[in-house]
Amino acid sequence: MARNITPREKDYSQWYLDVIKAAEMADYAPVRGCMVIRPTGYAIWESIQSQLDERFKETGHVNAYFPLLIPSSFLEKEAKHVEGFSPECAVVTYAGGEELEEPLVIRPTSETVIGHMYSKWIQSWRDLPILINQWCNVLRWEKRPRLFLRTSEFLWQEGHTAHATREEALEETLRMLEVYRSFMEEVLALPVLTGEKSEGERFPGAENTYTCEAMMTDKRALQAGTSHFLGQNFAKAFDIRFQNKDGELEYAWTTSWGVSTRLIGAIIMTHADNDGLVLPPNVAPVKTVILPITPDQNLLQEKILPEAEKILERLKKILGANRVVLDTQFHMRPGDRFFYHLQKGVPLRLELGEAEMKSSHLRAVRRDTGEVVNISFDAVEREVPRLLENIQNTLYRRARSFREENTYHVTSFEEFNEVLNKKGGFIKAYFAGSPEDEKAIKEATTATIRCFLLNEPTEGTCFYTKKKGGKLAVFAKAY
Amino acid sequence: MARNITPREKDYSQWYLDVIKAAEMADYAPVRGCMVIRPTGYAIWESIQSQLDERFKETGHVNAYFPLLIPSSFLEKEAKHVEGFSPECAVVTYAGGEELEEPLVIRPTSETVIGHMYSKWIQSWRDLPILINQWCNVLRWEKRPRLFLRTSEFLWQEGHTAHATREEALEETLRMLEVYRSFMEEVLALPVLTGEKSEGERFPGAENTYTCEAMMTDKRALQAGTSHFLGQNFAKAFDIRFQNKDGELEYAWTTSWGVSTRLIGAIIMTHADNDGLVLPPNVAPVKTVILPITPDQNLLQEKILPEAEKILERLKKILGANRVVLDTQFHMRPGDRFFYHLQKGVPLRLELGEAEMKSSHLRAVRRDTGEVVNISFDAVEREVPRLLENIQNTLYRRARSFREENTYHVTSFEEFNEVLNKKGGFIKAYFAGSPEDEKAIKEATTATIRCFLLNEPTEGTCFYTKKKGGKLAVFAKAY
Repeated sequence: MARNITPREKDYSQWYLDVIKAAEMADYAPVRGCMVIRPTGYAIWESIQSQLDERFKETGHVNAYFPLLIPSSFLEKEAKHVEGFSPECAVVTYAGGEELEEPLVIRPTSETVIGHMYSKWIQSWRDLPILINQWCNVLRWEKRPRLFLRTSEFLWQEGHTAHATREEALEETLRMLEVYRSFMEEVLALPVLTGEKSEGERFPGAENTYTCEAMMTDKRALQAGTSHFLGQNFAKAFDIRFQNKDGELEYAWTTSWGVSTRLIGAIIMTHADNDGLVLPPNVAPVKTVILPITPDQNLLQEKILPEAEKILERLKKILGANRVVLDTQFHMRPGDRFFYHLQKGVPLRLELGEAEMKSSHLRAVRRDTGEVVNISFDAVEREVPRLLENIQNTLYRRARSFREENTYHVTSFEEFNEVLNKKGGFIKAYFAGSPEDEKAIKEATTATIRCFLLNEPTEGTCFYTKKKGGKLAVFAKAY
Repeated sequence: MARNITPREKDYSQWYLDVIKAAEMADYAPVRGCMVIRPTGYAIWESIQSQLDERFKETGHVNAYFPLLIPSSFLEKEAKHVEGFSPECAVVTYAGGEELEEPLVIRPTSETVIGHMYSKWIQSWRDLPILINQWCNVLRWEKRPRLFLRTSEFLWQEGHTAHATREEALEETLRMLEVYRSFMEEVLALPVLTGEKSEGERFPGAENTYTCEAMMTDKRALQAGTSHFLGQNFAKAFDIRFQNKDGELEYAWTTSWGVSTRLIGAIIMTHADNDGLVLPPNVAPVKTVILPITPDQNLLQEKILPEAEKILERLKKILGANRVVLDTQFHMRPGDRFFYHLQKGVPLRLELGEAEMKSSHLRAVRRDTGEVVNISFDAVEREVPRLLENIQNTLYRRARSFREENTYHVTSFEEFNEVLNKKGGFIKAYFAGSPEDEKAIKEATTATIRCFLLNEPTEGTCFYTKKKGGKLAVFAKAY
């Protein structure tokens, strides 16, 4: 059992990779920049998928599937879109033994091909809104890959909706931003700031991009999900028109929104520690593990295992059949068995040995704090869910406090530089500069505007240009 | 509301496409041979996915994700594999703006890249078995595409397992064949014959291929799912070795098995009729629809709708929140509303109008038989599931009878030809010929051996070569 996780304080990047390796979450694939998501990692994605999907369906969305391959001419129909994505595309030039007449691009995102289909499906205002989501793989060629955070191929969902009015499309854009925010905070225990991207950081082809930004434990920002208001840009590029109630032809208003396997990277860099992964119970595929431990084989077979199996069945009923497991890796030493589950991030470990049998208690060890609680056998149905809820809340509060402790408000560029160099973290500042100013700040400091905060209507003096009417922005170095 | 479905008797191919179009299940994509799976079709795939996935997990499998792109050299490591698949591959030659050093193939199936990863993950007998499944898209360039049945890109699951012994791997191959059979019969109401493929029809690189074969309503066969015993072929090609309990290095034994979106084609061609799709309740995303119908707006608003909503809530509780819908398309004529749900294959329609309100009954119309049953308001919880179960069984029995009525046993090639030309269907015959004989039969008749039946230990005289010791085969023209 390897316990060699590099301490986070020593080398954050290596620590991140070591956590992934120790938990057997992912591996690099033989193709540069691509990854293999191993069962432990994939189970987290399945948990994310099923819970997000439920929230999408509750807000009226249905799933569909659009093709992987897109004619390269499609990308060119939206000027900013092709500029943004074509340098990252993988291109199919041969298929079925023949050279293709037109090269095909592996989807980096599907606005274009979905726009093409919507133009066929939408005729009348009665066909609107269209509220479709797709779970799929996408490909954006990556020169500096990093497991989960940046890989050439990744898994994601992309929602694509079409509406009759600007207002309705804007409302949808913000509704999905809120679905993301609440999912991230409630399920992933990931506190996020929501806001609007600056012009330079917008999705290529969008009128407006909204984002959820989280702070990782190295104080850098991670963009965890985005929701785009596409205006009529794609409707015009792909001729998505409908007859309105007055019989006139109008262009539709569209949105798109997505989150990806990157969220797994966010979980690691928010909750994991030097012992390995830490999973918030609400997203953990395995919420608790029962460990029968004793050197006494008779006691194990005759008393401990039967009791452990009884508790297993009782917990399955309240947590779900696959959400609790019984560890029977008796060929391993007890310490290695503890470590096995620590590294995989299981939120709660329930130990059952000779002492516990005598006192009819389980020894419950929390993954988040290491704290030990004794749970009476007959109280597992009450106490285990209560502990899990407490762990969930503790992880969220801890991450939120960390972000708050590392967020600073500055009013001058001098102060900005000082905070960035000495402390790091999020910097809040009023900004009224131009895209060129933003670029200059990025070149000088590597920090970028993560977003202009929503629900911050007050305006202030720009810390950089000293102009009035600055909006409250959050700056940070980012992944 | 278009009701123009070509009658099945007139033009089976066109009927099939019309059913798909009328139900809005799928559409051709702008790239030749690729399809868009629309929400109605995709919801069926989601239903298949979730129920199969549960059966995979019950048999000890976990999910993972392997990369879309495979170095072309990988395919060449297994001689038969490359021969079988390379003519169908789509090849990426450019990525990130540069020509690639080695072309990358979009996976047509993943034995090679998974074999490569397994060789890294497997060291000791303790690492075995590995029981992994993957849900993903694959690509096999298709010159004569047909929605769901043959498309260049399709969705599927591919299970890939590795074992310490031949016996264990063979057992797994047959276990998954049985998982497929029971799923197809119990959920899709699709009666299937299970058997072993002949040498010429095996998966490229397999030692043995097992299959589930179904009869479509045009009497042709459809291969609905396959399970392959790969022996040590891929283990040798990719160096998957483990140290056994005696400390010696051995090659692992592997299997693979898969079903695809083709199953949706099988559902259509087994159950659909001239009014459109017919879905077995166990796979239907929407099991029943409630239709409030009256020209009297007051009655509708004050009595009928409130009652319909009450029944909706009661049915949601027993069928699942998304499994029952209330039709409020009041801008459509009643006949068009009926047809809308007929075409989409909803198993049961519950009508609620003035007469029904008076008698406190729902008018239930079965999709499979058109039969009408009155259900008292207070009996919906009992009667609706009972009717759905009856519909499920009726569809299965009907399909099974159809297959039995169209299956013939022959003992000579003359008889074989006569049955094939005059009747069609499945032909059972003892066969002891060579692969060349099989080829000659195919060239003369276009019929192929669908499988040698399992559980048919008796041997007989070969209908073709007149040799003794023939095994019982099923021949048919196939999709």
